[in-house]
Amino acid sequence: MSVSHAQHPGGASRFASLTPLLQPRSVAVVGASSDPHRIGGRPIAYMLRNGFAGRILPVNPNRSEIQGLPAFASVEALPEAPDVAIVALPAPQVLETIRALGRKGARSAIVFSSGFSEVGGEGEQMQEALVEAARAANMRLLGPNALGVFNANLGYYAFFSTSLERGTPLAGRVGIATQSGAYGAHLLGLARQRGLGTPICVATGNEADVTLGDAIGWLVESPEVDVVMAYAESIRNVDSFLAALAAAHRAGKPVILHKVGRSELGGRAAMSHTASLAGDDKVLDAVLADYAVVRARNTEELMDIAYLATQRIYPVNNSLGMITVSGGAGIIVSDAAEEVGLPMPPMPEAAQARLKQRLSFASPINPVDCTAQALNDLSLVHDFTESMVVDGGYRSLIAFFTQAGTAASIGPRLAEQFARIKADHPERLFVVSVMGEGEELAPYEKAGFALFEDPTRAVYAIQAMGRLGEAFARPLRQVPAPGGVELPAQTPGEAEAKQLLAGAGIESAPERVLGNAADAVAFAEAIGYPVVLKIASADILHKSEIGGVLLGVDSAAAVREGFDLLLRRAAEHAPAARIDGVLVARQLQGGVECFMGIQRDPQFGPVAVFGLGGIFVEVLKDVVFRRCPFDAAEAEAMIRGIRGAPLLLGARGRPVTDVKALAQVLSRLSRFAAQAGPRLRSVDLNPVFAMPEGQGAWAADAVLEVQEVAHGAES
Amino acid sequence: MSVSHAQHPGGASRFASLTPLLQPRSVAVVGASSDPHRIGGRPIAYMLRNGFAGRILPVNPNRSEIQGLPAFASVEALPEAPDVAIVALPAPQVLETIRALGRKGARSAIVFSSGFSEVGGEGEQMQEALVEAARAANMRLLGPNALGVFNANLGYYAFFSTSLERGTPLAGRVGIATQSGAYGAHLLGLARQRGLGTPICVATGNEADVTLGDAIGWLVESPEVDVVMAYAESIRNVDSFLAALAAAHRAGKPVILHKVGRSELGGRAAMSHTASLAGDDKVLDAVLADYAVVRARNTEELMDIAYLATQRIYPVNNSLGMITVSGGAGIIVSDAAEEVGLPMPPMPEAAQARLKQRLSFASPINPVDCTAQALNDLSLVHDFTESMVVDGGYRSLIAFFTQAGTAASIGPRLAEQFARIKADHPERLFVVSVMGEGEELAPYEKAGFALFEDPTRAVYAIQAMGRLGEAFARPLRQVPAPGGVELPAQTPGEAEAKQLLAGAGIESAPERVLGNAADAVAFAEAIGYPVVLKIASADILHKSEIGGVLLGVDSAAAVREGFDLLLRRAAEHAPAARIDGVLVARQLQGGVECFMGIQRDPQFGPVAVFGLGGIFVEVLKDVVFRRCPFDAAEAEAMIRGIRGAPLLLGARGRPVTDVKALAQVLSRLSRFAAQAGPRLRSVDLNPVFAMPEGQGAWAADAVLEVQEVAHGAES
Repeated sequence: MSVSHAQHPGGASRFASLTPLLQPRSVAVVGASSDPHRIGGRPIAYMLRNGFAGRILPVNPNRSEIQGLPAFASVEALPEAPDVAIVALPAPQVLETIRALGRKGARSAIVFSSGFSEVGGEGEQMQEALVEAARAANMRLLGPNALGVFNANLGYYAFFSTSLERGTPLAGRVGIATQSGAYGAHLLGLARQRGLGTPICVATGNEADVTLGDAIGWLVESPEVDVVMAYAESIRNVDSFLAALAAAHRAGKPVILHKVGRSELGGRAAMSHTASLAGDDKVLDAVLADYAVVRARNTEELMDIAYLATQRIYPVNNSLGMITVSGGAGIIVSDAAEEVGLPMPPMPEAAQARLKQRLSFASPINPVDCTAQALNDLSLVHDFTESMVVDGGYRSLIAFFTQAGTAASIGPRLAEQFARIKADHPERLFVVSVMGEGEELAPYEKAGFALFEDPTRAVYAIQAMGRLGEAFARPLRQVPAPGGVELPAQTPGEAEAKQLLAGAGIESAPERVLGNAADAVAFAEAIGYPVVLKIASADILHKSEIGGVLLGVDSAAAVREGFDLLLRRAAEHAPAARIDGVLVARQLQGGVECFMGIQRDPQFGPVAVFGLGGIFVEVLKDVVFRRCPFDAAEAEAMIRGIRGAPLLLGARGRPVTDVKALAQVLSRLSRFAAQAGPRLRSVDLNPVFAMPEGQGAWAADAVLEVQEVAHGAES
Repeated sequence: MSVSHAQHPGGASRFASLTPLLQPRSVAVVGASSDPHRIGGRPIAYMLRNGFAGRILPVNPNRSEIQGLPAFASVEALPEAPDVAIVALPAPQVLETIRALGRKGARSAIVFSSGFSEVGGEGEQMQEALVEAARAANMRLLGPNALGVFNANLGYYAFFSTSLERGTPLAGRVGIATQSGAYGAHLLGLARQRGLGTPICVATGNEADVTLGDAIGWLVESPEVDVVMAYAESIRNVDSFLAALAAAHRAGKPVILHKVGRSELGGRAAMSHTASLAGDDKVLDAVLADYAVVRARNTEELMDIAYLATQRIYPVNNSLGMITVSGGAGIIVSDAAEEVGLPMPPMPEAAQARLKQRLSFASPINPVDCTAQALNDLSLVHDFTESMVVDGGYRSLIAFFTQAGTAASIGPRLAEQFARIKADHPERLFVVSVMGEGEELAPYEKAGFALFEDPTRAVYAIQAMGRLGEAFARPLRQVPAPGGVELPAQTPGEAEAKQLLAGAGIESAPERVLGNAADAVAFAEAIGYPVVLKIASADILHKSEIGGVLLGVDSAAAVREGFDLLLRRAAEHAPAARIDGVLVARQLQGGVECFMGIQRDPQFGPVAVFGLGGIFVEVLKDVVFRRCPFDAAEAEAMIRGIRGAPLLLGARGRPVTDVKALAQVLSRLSRFAAQAGPRLRSVDLNPVFAMPEGQGAWAADAVLEVQEVAHGAES
């Protein structure tokens, strides 16, 4: 296949440096083989077979001709600096080759060879040397241990998978970026089966230089790509990954990500309470929530969502209407829509009445069941569906006609009816669910419908299109540079931590140590009754044992009496203790205990966590994560999103708490963390009291951990 | 298709009465049509085309011949009493026909016609009349509004779906029972695509007489069926449904159930607290847990599980080993196995070392990644896989070879290697995951492997086989007849309720009202300190306001003093009150509040619910259901199964509670409910205190609701 093709815009983009790798005019093959079945022979055979328009330059010291092409004895002997050089040599010979390519002026290299970081030890060092050599020559390097790349639009195949023997990729506009070669080849096979065109593919291997993010970034900026399908085992370079997602958002192109592996980084669990909650996977999800990315739960969903995304319809305020010839399928779709939170509102009553009048057996609510009856007069199907679009206003539609929809007597005519509606309402996402193969499906395919045999899978994919629509409609969040918060050199104590946070607008429960009764009364009047009084002395550890704590002190007189009482008790029970005075604190009552924290992810920076206190966090793990910073509206959405949220919102006769104030505290904490920069390791506010409405939210304890400044650097 | 076929054993089984319907020797068609495309013509055309071995008897008053067969003018004119009669007439003519068939001695009838209970009103009455007529004649009736039945093993098609035009079902041993005709036809199409043989199918329609349970029951007892696939929208006759599931368990044949519709019966929500938790769907799941039934989450899973079940390998103590050429696929499978709780233990270390020695690039843990390297020497694949079976001991295996496994140069030889292992270890469940079509898959199919292109879906299906294995290994629970508990005529008060439950071994917190201090001391000594003392008087409502409650009373002397103090305070503050004495109760401290209840499901009888108290039940709905009765071991499994269970088991420094005692109470409650019979509507024990280990579990409150006995019936 070689279709007309558009150059990558490149320009100022950080991803433009991949253009020689993906749209080369000349391809050197170092370690070229005459045998089209060997790794060094396959790319040449594929390119010859598929009419690569550029120059193929085989390098082999022992042959003057390779697969009918003139061969060159060495890199030095090449007649030009190639855009890209494939290196298919044993690992020990790779480094010298990369250096030679650098000297020659090659713009990029693809290292097929394995035996580098994936085997550890010496392999890692060799890989580092490769990167160094490539960078020194301003050359991008894909691999090592990479299956390679292809761009079928150019007939360009720097790719040694035998899966291409089964057929080249179909024409289309889906790009693939994958960390696993073998699984990438599997995806190619699935895409071909599904009729999904994936002409451009990058398999990144060890990612010594070019990463998955680079590949995604180049693909979303390509005018030849509408949708990117990505497979990841770990995100190795967060910068390029996030830059790629931002580029995708700008371009209005979705990234469908299959990130596998859910294991947690056990090593971090000990650092803080928040860390023990923040598995890598949850942090990644929190980060992805900002972008137009859908994370597929499995390979099938990856294919389904990418397939539907090629329709390029991403509804905002998505809703689903279904027209069906089977009530059973209607229930199945309703169940699936409820499961993923895709609304299926009923048809307006007037429209229902009209439909019922046309076909008395019909069930006109939604799903609209037109019954097999309607197959005798397909204009009924048209009018019912049209009414769902116009009167029902559904953003997305499923038409379930299973085998009836592919019967020779019905299929083409039914497709025609639907095509009329699609032409009149091109902004609606319209999925047809029929069962059949090959020619039976042609009328629907020709009319451009997305086809799903299984309506449940259609629902999941349709829901994903709505999430993409919301993401594209939302402006991308700007993460500010750190600054404005000065952290202490060492991890501070509780009081200092609270003071730091107070500077960021996060108030602890108001409290103060006072030396005389008059000051104590004045402070109590200022913060409001009831207050708690505690004897303040570093020498008295167990204050309550000597009666050194008074609760529910609710008037000026009571404060005055209590002040004297505490001093007397201290004098009596601990005559040697040095007394600082009496601590006066607002007594928090009727509040709900919450937990908030910050965890610095080594990859994604500060991530905030919120949950209800105690067992909710510790046992039920009912928590929500978000990358810092975020505003109060987003904080409120987080708070309302946890399972236990009803406890804050007045469930079963409980008081409604001050969720707005709580959200304010959470948002301020996220800003504090963003401003504090990388030395802030973690914050735990445990508990934060969400008080009844109008009474605010207060952190009752604060633990803040910083990376210590080395002594030498302190001056 | 007409394969050799075995008669249904019938005999004493309640399902034997369906044999004339499913294995008829003669089929009358009332409303027979010469047009093979009309509803009254299709069954005849299908049977003629497929060589039905029995007699086809068309009934049509206007023709002497129908599709080449002699036709009869009326039911009366039939030359014999047919085993089954198809009725394809307008609704108003059906009743008279059923009566005529009854008089003629027909053994069963299938009513295709619609216009009965599904349209409500008069249709319902007509349907009742049909049932009456059929029962009077000792005739089974399928439908009305039914798509019908077929038994391809006999060439018998009393089925009017056009889906049969696309091809008759493949030979095989999967039976289908479905409430929806249209969705049933969809399933038939899917099965044919999948290569799954479904020669016998029953679509039950309105289920006026024959229900889904009847159909399942007959199928599992048929020697021609190994696996039943069932689609249900509601369980209309629980008796036959449960009898069918019991028969399936006896026969060692799994039922794969797709029950759709998750809406709750709002009407019952008001009755009791337990009822508001017990949605129909959860109750159904609780009931199914007893049987060898897997509930599929969607249609795809229904097909997958049924397909794998035809291997007839249901492992006990299931575990999964995977051999793969892609590390990525290995991670995907590990994620999926973790998600559904299917263990993937590592290979023994010695075996790992051996494999590593044979192929240094291999990752020998589990998944065992033999890398594409092994494709050059397939004996490696054999030896690796053999080691997983022998050394690893995995009950189930997935071999992931994607496109490599269907390459012409590899496929047949790889299949041979695997076939050797399968022959040596026929008891292992062995799934091959390769990508390809038609002839490419033939070597694996011929060797009898289950094939899944998507390894994630294979994991889900393999996990289901393990659940079936456990279910078959467990003896079926016997539900005893009610008896042994006498309920009061009216809903009792708290004290009477507690007394009733105490009779069943469910103790409330021990308490007693005593008239003098000496008795109070003796009782306190008996139940253990600390105790609570309360003034006992129906005239004093707010006891704590007059100081009428004493907590933490912890010695004989304190009880004596407290007794006198309470009487003095009562005399002082409420001189007119009649005093019954002082209530002495064990003070429950350090316990965890739980909730237990019983809800009588109108279909499945008493169902028990357990959860932690307060918000766990009310907000988080963290509850578990089980059909009554069950023993303490099962109760303990329920208790340990809730999300919040760590709170009972010593999470984060909490005391470990007396879970054994708690399970005892729950089990006793379930027995009480079973014995009490249908007049027991609900029980709420809220809270039940689970005390620290060794200190028991006590119901602190009990509400018991009974169906009132009508006055006339009371005498």
